[in-house]
Amino acid sequence: MSADGSRFDPLVVVELTSDTKEEAISWLLSRIRDTQQNGGRPIQLEQLGPGVSAQEKENPNLFLVGATRQRLLSGAEDLGLFKEFHDGSMRGFTCANKHNFKDFQDGDSFLSMAECQYIIKHELDTLRARDETHVPGHQQVKLYPGKSIIRRLLSKGILIQVFPLHQKEELKRLSFSWYQKVKLSFQPLDDIRHYYGEGQALYFGFLEYFTFALVPMALIGVPYYLFDWEDYDKYVLLAAFNLVWCTVILELWKRCSASLAYRWGTLSRKKAFEEPRPGFHGVLGFNPVTGREEPLYPNTKRQLRVYLVSLPFVLLCLYLSLYIMMIYFLMEGWVLSVHDEEPTFWTGILCFIPSVIYAVVIEVMNLIYRYAAEFLTEWENHRLESSYQNHLVLKVLVFNFFNCFASLFYIAFVMHDMVMLRQSLATLLITSQILNQFMEAFLPFWLQRRRNKKMIRKVQIRKTLEDKELPLADQVRLEADMSTYLGTFDDYLELFLLFGYVSLFSCVYPLAAVLVVLNNITEVYSDAFKMCRVFKRPFSDPAANIGVWQLAFEAMSVIAVVTNCSLIGMSPQVKAYFPESDMQLILWTVAVEHGLLAFKFILTFLIPDVPKHIQINLSRLEFESLEALKKKPLSMCPRAKTLNPTMSPVAVLRCV
Amino acid sequence: MSADGSRFDPLVVVELTSDTKEEAISWLLSRIRDTQQNGGRPIQLEQLGPGVSAQEKENPNLFLVGATRQRLLSGAEDLGLFKEFHDGSMRGFTCANKHNFKDFQDGDSFLSMAECQYIIKHELDTLRARDETHVPGHQQVKLYPGKSIIRRLLSKGILIQVFPLHQKEELKRLSFSWYQKVKLSFQPLDDIRHYYGEGQALYFGFLEYFTFALVPMALIGVPYYLFDWEDYDKYVLLAAFNLVWCTVILELWKRCSASLAYRWGTLSRKKAFEEPRPGFHGVLGFNPVTGREEPLYPNTKRQLRVYLVSLPFVLLCLYLSLYIMMIYFLMEGWVLSVHDEEPTFWTGILCFIPSVIYAVVIEVMNLIYRYAAEFLTEWENHRLESSYQNHLVLKVLVFNFFNCFASLFYIAFVMHDMVMLRQSLATLLITSQILNQFMEAFLPFWLQRRRNKKMIRKVQIRKTLEDKELPLADQVRLEADMSTYLGTFDDYLELFLLFGYVSLFSCVYPLAAVLVVLNNITEVYSDAFKMCRVFKRPFSDPAANIGVWQLAFEAMSVIAVVTNCSLIGMSPQVKAYFPESDMQLILWTVAVEHGLLAFKFILTFLIPDVPKHIQINLSRLEFESLEALKKKPLSMCPRAKTLNPTMSPVAVLRCV
Repeated sequence: MSADGSRFDPLVVVELTSDTKEEAISWLLSRIRDTQQNGGRPIQLEQLGPGVSAQEKENPNLFLVGATRQRLLSGAEDLGLFKEFHDGSMRGFTCANKHNFKDFQDGDSFLSMAECQYIIKHELDTLRARDETHVPGHQQVKLYPGKSIIRRLLSKGILIQVFPLHQKEELKRLSFSWYQKVKLSFQPLDDIRHYYGEGQALYFGFLEYFTFALVPMALIGVPYYLFDWEDYDKYVLLAAFNLVWCTVILELWKRCSASLAYRWGTLSRKKAFEEPRPGFHGVLGFNPVTGREEPLYPNTKRQLRVYLVSLPFVLLCLYLSLYIMMIYFLMEGWVLSVHDEEPTFWTGILCFIPSVIYAVVIEVMNLIYRYAAEFLTEWENHRLESSYQNHLVLKVLVFNFFNCFASLFYIAFVMHDMVMLRQSLATLLITSQILNQFMEAFLPFWLQRRRNKKMIRKVQIRKTLEDKELPLADQVRLEADMSTYLGTFDDYLELFLLFGYVSLFSCVYPLAAVLVVLNNITEVYSDAFKMCRVFKRPFSDPAANIGVWQLAFEAMSVIAVVTNCSLIGMSPQVKAYFPESDMQLILWTVAVEHGLLAFKFILTFLIPDVPKHIQINLSRLEFESLEALKKKPLSMCPRAKTLNPTMSPVAVLRCV
Repeated sequence: MSADGSRFDPLVVVELTSDTKEEAISWLLSRIRDTQQNGGRPIQLEQLGPGVSAQEKENPNLFLVGATRQRLLSGAEDLGLFKEFHDGSMRGFTCANKHNFKDFQDGDSFLSMAECQYIIKHELDTLRARDETHVPGHQQVKLYPGKSIIRRLLSKGILIQVFPLHQKEELKRLSFSWYQKVKLSFQPLDDIRHYYGEGQALYFGFLEYFTFALVPMALIGVPYYLFDWEDYDKYVLLAAFNLVWCTVILELWKRCSASLAYRWGTLSRKKAFEEPRPGFHGVLGFNPVTGREEPLYPNTKRQLRVYLVSLPFVLLCLYLSLYIMMIYFLMEGWVLSVHDEEPTFWTGILCFIPSVIYAVVIEVMNLIYRYAAEFLTEWENHRLESSYQNHLVLKVLVFNFFNCFASLFYIAFVMHDMVMLRQSLATLLITSQILNQFMEAFLPFWLQRRRNKKMIRKVQIRKTLEDKELPLADQVRLEADMSTYLGTFDDYLELFLLFGYVSLFSCVYPLAAVLVVLNNITEVYSDAFKMCRVFKRPFSDPAANIGVWQLAFEAMSVIAVVTNCSLIGMSPQVKAYFPESDMQLILWTVAVEHGLLAFKFILTFLIPDVPKHIQINLSRLEFESLEALKKKPLSMCPRAKTLNPTMSPVAVLRCV
């Protein structure tokens, strides 16, 4: 029971370090409880009691956060969550109108737990310091007006983590229908979305869609692989089909994703109305669109940072990576020549050394680059979480693309060695798949298991098995110990690289599609398993699409046209058709390539991104909104009531 | 004075044939007067009295149409016209809110005359037959439910024309500030928009922008032309600059056009909410977005018509046009060989014959194709005027592009004759400019003048010069005799072809930009002159952008990258850099071309289409609309009140 007597459902856990000063804790708790813009209904907080195995050095500073139903509903309205209206359309939720929403009834199960946790997270994240001061008891932790308090505490190490709680029962049900059933069926996307939120569900939807979309390519690729191993000219048809097919599946995915996002209510949410991300800082002011008070940061300054610092940095890193690759090829050539001259056991071992060094250097560079990219993107100070993610993803994936494919490109277009290309491709594809599956799900699970076993055993000895359920306190401590899921980035990156292996060199190694399909099927299971069993529950993320990944996949399919056309043009069988001159051959290749590119662009242009019926629903919403605005009672300055007395003269002028 | 006693301002003239039956006239007039959805305020009608020179075979069936101020204001609300709100933003006009709009005051000059005429035109166009019947007195003119009456009468020849009246005073003022001043200044775009509407003003805005944008290319081109006549390799820089510049100016134009359209209130109007064009037919039903009763036509049926009939037809015509061109080149080659063998006076004349035949055939094909394209686009049955225009424009311009440039492409890439290419280019450019200016403005003006002089002389003799102003009746008859302006299509097409001459072969003939700039300057004057003096006033057209022309110009700039790169690659001076192999040269050319194309696309992607402050205004409108919808009083089915008792079961179901 919380202080104000209503039923308390813990939703989110806040963990502070055990050596946090008392006054800092009470200051933070009172700040959290003070978020009372909504008619004095505060967020509820409760300190977690000691677990059953409480004797030792256990952290006492674990707090459970929850809120009353009314508080959550008004939070949903503030966030502009879209829910299904009684007429089947999606509308922004409002408390005044709540009974017109489908499935509202008593409102208890109206918001999913993931949505409630997202609302709480948003409330915590938007706690912003008002004055320049410091955290009580921690002189060194300064606070600046407009900056997120939680962020500050996290970066200074006072706050260890904020994470949402799992629901044992629901998780059991979800994991059963998701990956424990053996029969072939679609994933329960709506349940996934209900439990993990839209971002996760879109990833799994994409993974499923991508797998099915690759099946035709795999089916057509198998006979090519079995019967025409060396006849490149027979691959022309296959490659042309693949290129068109890639375009079609990417376009259709947009429609699919729009359907899913509309059903889940994230398609209609507008970016401009979203609140800024917690890491965003700037001078406090009034948002020109919504009139809400929030930090403002000039767009030009951000663009200067992007184009004058981040872009050159990324280009420099790409150059460096290319340079290192060239050194690797030189070393490899030198070692091979040494081995060929006088093959001994030691030169045989020497042959592996360049690869090993190269692999290590690449890994180290990847790691450093990733940190630098995160730092730079944070420094660019994007207003929205989605645009932060997009910029980060773009930086990292360009670098990864280079590292993965530069050597293949070199083999294909500088060394012209198709046999080596096929071998490298197969090796890369198979090893990366095996390694990924192992590193991603089974290794963390195994580590987790070893850690947890001790604790669970302890708990179970104490409770002498009177009740199979763990008490809340132990459950929370168990979850706090689980690894943190770092977002869908690595999962998408893996799919992206696989897509690259399939599309870029499809005319050299048609079996790639088969391998990727097989990989994706196991990927569904291992990803589902890791989401349910290995990691802490992630906060849901109301994504409307897969963001910059769509662009990345499309860019890959454009590059694929160029690579496939040139590979086919370079093949000896095709060259044989133009015995008199190479020029004819190249001109034809270029002409075909241009034709394919033009066809791709026309196709992209012709297939509408959003299905017709959803377009109609969206424009109906817009039409009814505009009509409502027309009929609104007069008010001289509609935004005046949301502005507080400290508003700047500029804001006043803009409003008059 | 009209029947109901209010002051009558004639806005639009309706002319019926002189042999129209009396009952048909009175039926039509009563149908027009019956458009009383808006609180019983009908449209006003008045028959035009005989002119001063009325004795002869003058048509008595000229009717003046007008409306009261209230009627026009409620028409503006129905049409969803956007006007400036008191806070400087653009809002959909509503009568209830009218005093909150800027410059409303007494409402007399709130709507421009062009807007009033557009409202009247819309009222006339949306007179739709309700039952299957025929026009009284004209058994052969059948009416079908849902089809526009005015359209039917026009196509059956009973209605000769519907046109808006000029305003002598305003026209005089406009033409003075537009083209009669000699000093160099920008065009009065806002005044043009006020008098002719947004579509015209955007055309003149584009013409002006395009002229200024070409000035840097012209300035850089002149020294190249003067000093390096034969050094293609020096043209590399010029061509690269031109290609990037073309992309930049087209992207910036989008921003410019968005600014203009926002200021004029057409940017925020949404296509989905527009009423269908008069020629649109289908089963009467309810629009799923707005809930208004209007004809519906399935989208799939239209797309089948587009892709299965129109597209193959266009491709066939293009093939035919190519075929004819090949025959022309064969004939030309044969004639030249005859002339070379034995040059006499007759073979000299013979040399001109293929060109003459080709020119005539092309003109005839153009004419036939134009009719076919209009017929097909009408048959495709587009719902919106803008999409009808876009499909028509696309069909015609593809064909015109082929006819204009196919021979140049042939000379450049099949015959490899750069000297001939430059000569043809110069000839085409200069002759087409002179011909155009002459045909477009001076010829119609001269014809007009001859026709009018007789009439004016007659009038002035009668009135014995007591008053210099023509009386209304004669003024109307004079305007009814003027030629009809057929829209901006031919003007844009001319600019498009000029842009083609400048961009496609800019590295061969850098002087093209200079010629085009000079042409455009005179074009502004001749177009302005023809709008003010030669043609009937056109109905205004609330365009938000230049439509499919933007796409056409962009496509041209992409094609320009390919042609310029290959021209430079083919030049002997560049070939000299790669003496050892042609392959190296081609590969380099292709690589540079791909780089330029990629750069173009990235640039297009990076430059936002709408300036930031307009984006903010647009999303503020959207935000406030959504907020207003949230706060709207409850109503179980918001669209129910607009549905009448005859609604289909589907519509009822959709609404519940």
